Formats: sequence, structure tokens, C-alpha cells
Amino acid sequence: MVDTAVRKPDTYSEILEVAEHLFEQLGFQKTTVADIAHEMQMSPANIYRFFAAKGEINQAVADRLLAKVIVEIRKIARASGPASAKLRVLIFTVEKLNSQRFSSDRKLHDLLEAAYNAHWPIVAAHDEAVNKVFAQVISDGMAAGEFREGDSDLAAILVRSACIRFFHPRLVVEYAQDPEPTVDQMVDLCLAALAKQPQLAARLAGKQHIIIS
Amino acid sequence: MVDTAVRKPDTYSEILEVAEHLFEQLGFQKTTVADIAHEMQMSPANIYRFFAAKGEINQAVADRLLAKVIVEIRKIARASGPASAKLRVLIFTVEKLNSQRFSSDRKLHDLLEAAYNAHWPIVAAHDEAVNKVFAQVISDGMAAGEFREGDSDLAAILVRSACIRFFHPRLVVEYAQDPEPTVDQMVDLCLAALAKQPQLAARLAGKQHIIIS
Repeated sequence: MVDTAVRKPDTYSEILEVAEHLFEQLGFQKTTVADIAHEMQMSPANIYRFFAAKGEINQAVADRLLAKVIVEIRKIARASGPASAKLRVLIFTVEKLNSQRFSSDRKLHDLLEAAYNAHWPIVAAHDEAVNKVFAQVISDGMAAGEFREGDSDLAAILVRSACIRFFHPRLVVEYAQDPEPTVDQMVDLCLAALAKQPQLAARLAGKQHIIIS
Repeated sequence: MVDTAVRKPDTYSEILEVAEHLFEQLGFQKTTVADIAHEMQMSPANIYRFFAAKGEINQAVADRLLAKVIVEIRKIARASGPASAKLRVLIFTVEKLNSQRFSSDRKLHDLLEAAYNAHWPIVAAHDEAVNKVFAQVISDGMAAGEFREGDSDLAAILVRSACIRFFHPRLVVEYAQDPEPTVDQMVDLCLAALAKQPQLAARLAGKQHIIIS
């Protein structure tokens, strides 16, 4: 085995990429540091130069998965269109990424379920990042007179909590068979709560568009 | 040991009472059918006349715990007062019973956490019962002109789902340290979504009372 890590600035990222790939195949619990090292043709000792323990790799891979959600929803927040339409697309996107992972990448889903169950610090940080994106869109909607004036940070926390049944990996599993509420219905509830004119919001529901550049 | 079950019509309930008491002390997983039989001075075979397996006792005890919640909220639904105030008290009551169980009866909480995690049928039945009580109050509020007209059954499902962070035993544990959202804030969101006049609802928040007879 050749130890090439010192000469590679991106070894850290490569370890995580390989780890994610192995987690997808074997599951995070069955993947060992030796497996990752073997796949990368390096020594386990070299991996331990970047991660003090396997648990740190688990957390970093989970963090990468959640970071992809944030990248997607930030794009939506920057789109042009009414705030209510953006908020709908935001909520749908978080839900879609979660449910896709559950149906297509069950083993990566398991990693996130463990992260939420054990309250890994990356989960709170992720929730905080989601809150910020939601708060920005809600604040824009308040400024535009679309939403009633108020505390946009609190409104963001409330909307995310109200939608937790679609965002939390454990609940995605538990309620997979429940037909109601749909994401659309829950978005309608949240928009009715935020809207300056709930009746108008109800009539416009699903008829507004946003343009993501 | 004297087998007295045949002469006692309420042996079924007594088994559950004793089981709940033992679950509280030892935890449901460590309590055996032999423990319950010993406490009741009967033979395990007698217990098996009522329950085919220990798992059935677990489910029946969990069901009893959840039934207590339904008894409490039905009292509130029958109270006199504005629907929005009743809905607030309903949501607070479910939350309070859950969080009290978590802080004072951790071992019974564990049983309910297992029930939710494993999606025991009693959980869906309980959710359905909660929905019905919520729907009744929402429907009354719609009839009284307090809430916008609409599908009260769907509104009930949405309100319960929005509040799941306070109702679901697993989430009560996970978010025990999170200061926000508070129950009050989440109720405000739901009432703003339901109210015919959200501005008025906001001004009245927490200032209305109900009388439970």
C-alpha cells in the first residue's frame, strides 16, 4: 500500500466519497475503516489521520448527504416568483429528497435515521440551515405584502416543524403508507397561516410558478 | 397458586393493571408473563387464556395508556367555549400527557416509543380517535363562523400532523431540549390557518377560556 495522502489535498473528500459509496452497498454499520482503506489502496492509519474514529466518518457522510439538500433549496430560494410558490417548492424538494433516499438508497437512509435518532450535532446544524432558507423566503414574502408581517425566523421554525412528518427520516418510514396529509395539503395549511389574505392564497394554491435560474 | 380467573369477570383488566404496574417498575421488556402471574398469584397458563403471547399484553397496556389521553380530550371537546380556545387546550393536553409520561414514567414512555416505532395497530387507531375529537371541535368552529368553512376531517389530520413534534413519543425525546417552537406558537400557527379572521385570532390568542363541566 502506498501512502499518498500527504500529497493529495482532497484526500479528506475522497475518503468521504468512498465511504458513502461503501455505506450505500454494505450499510454504514457493516463498513469498517479497513474496508474504506482497502478501497482507497491506503493504510487504515492514513484514514485515522483525518478521522479520529469510524463514528466521525459516519457523521461526515451524513453531513454531506444533508448538505446536498441545502444546496438544492438555496437554489429555490434564489429563484424569481412569489414567496408562497417558492415555499411550496422548498417543502416539496426537502420531502422529495428524503423520500427518494428512503425508496432508492435505503442504506443511506438508515444512516440518516441513526443520525436523527441519536441526535448527532450535524442534525441540529442542518435544521438550522433549513430554517435560514425558509426564513429568507418568508421574510421576502412579508416584505412583498404577500404574508402578514411578523417574525420570519419563528415562522420558519414553525413551518419546518409542521412539515416534520415529511422531513424526518424516521417519520418518512412510519407514515409511508398513510395517504394523508399530502405534502400539498400541509403546504396549504402553512400558507393559509402565513398569508395576508388566506382566501386568495387558497385560490392561488398550485397555480403560481417560480423560475429557477 | 389458586386459579381464580374463571370466577372473576374482570381478570382481563386486572392482568393489564398489574402488567402496567410491573412495566412501570421493571420496563415492559424485562417483565415476563411469569412475573405478572406471580404478582397475581395465578398460573402463567391462566394469563395465556386471555393473551396468546406477551406481545399482546404489551399492546393492550399501551392501548390503555393512550385511551387515557382520549378520555381527557373528549372532556375538553364537550366543554363550552370558543372552538379556538378548545383546540388550544386539546393540543396542550395531548402534549402535557406525553411530556409528563416522558419525565415521570420513563419506562411507560419506552413502551409507547416501541409502539410508535414498530407501528403497532393501536397507534393508528389512537391517531384516528384523536383526529375525530379534533374534527368535532373544528367542525363546531366552522359552524359558528369562527373558522373558515372547509373539510373538518382533513383540517383535523393537518393540525395533528403539524403538532406531531409534541405528540410523538420519539420526537418528544429528540426535541426535549429545543426551546422552539413552543406548543403555544404551534397552536397559533394552526389557528391562523383555520381562522376566518387571522388578525382577530392573533389578538385573541390565549385570552379565551373554556369551561369543562
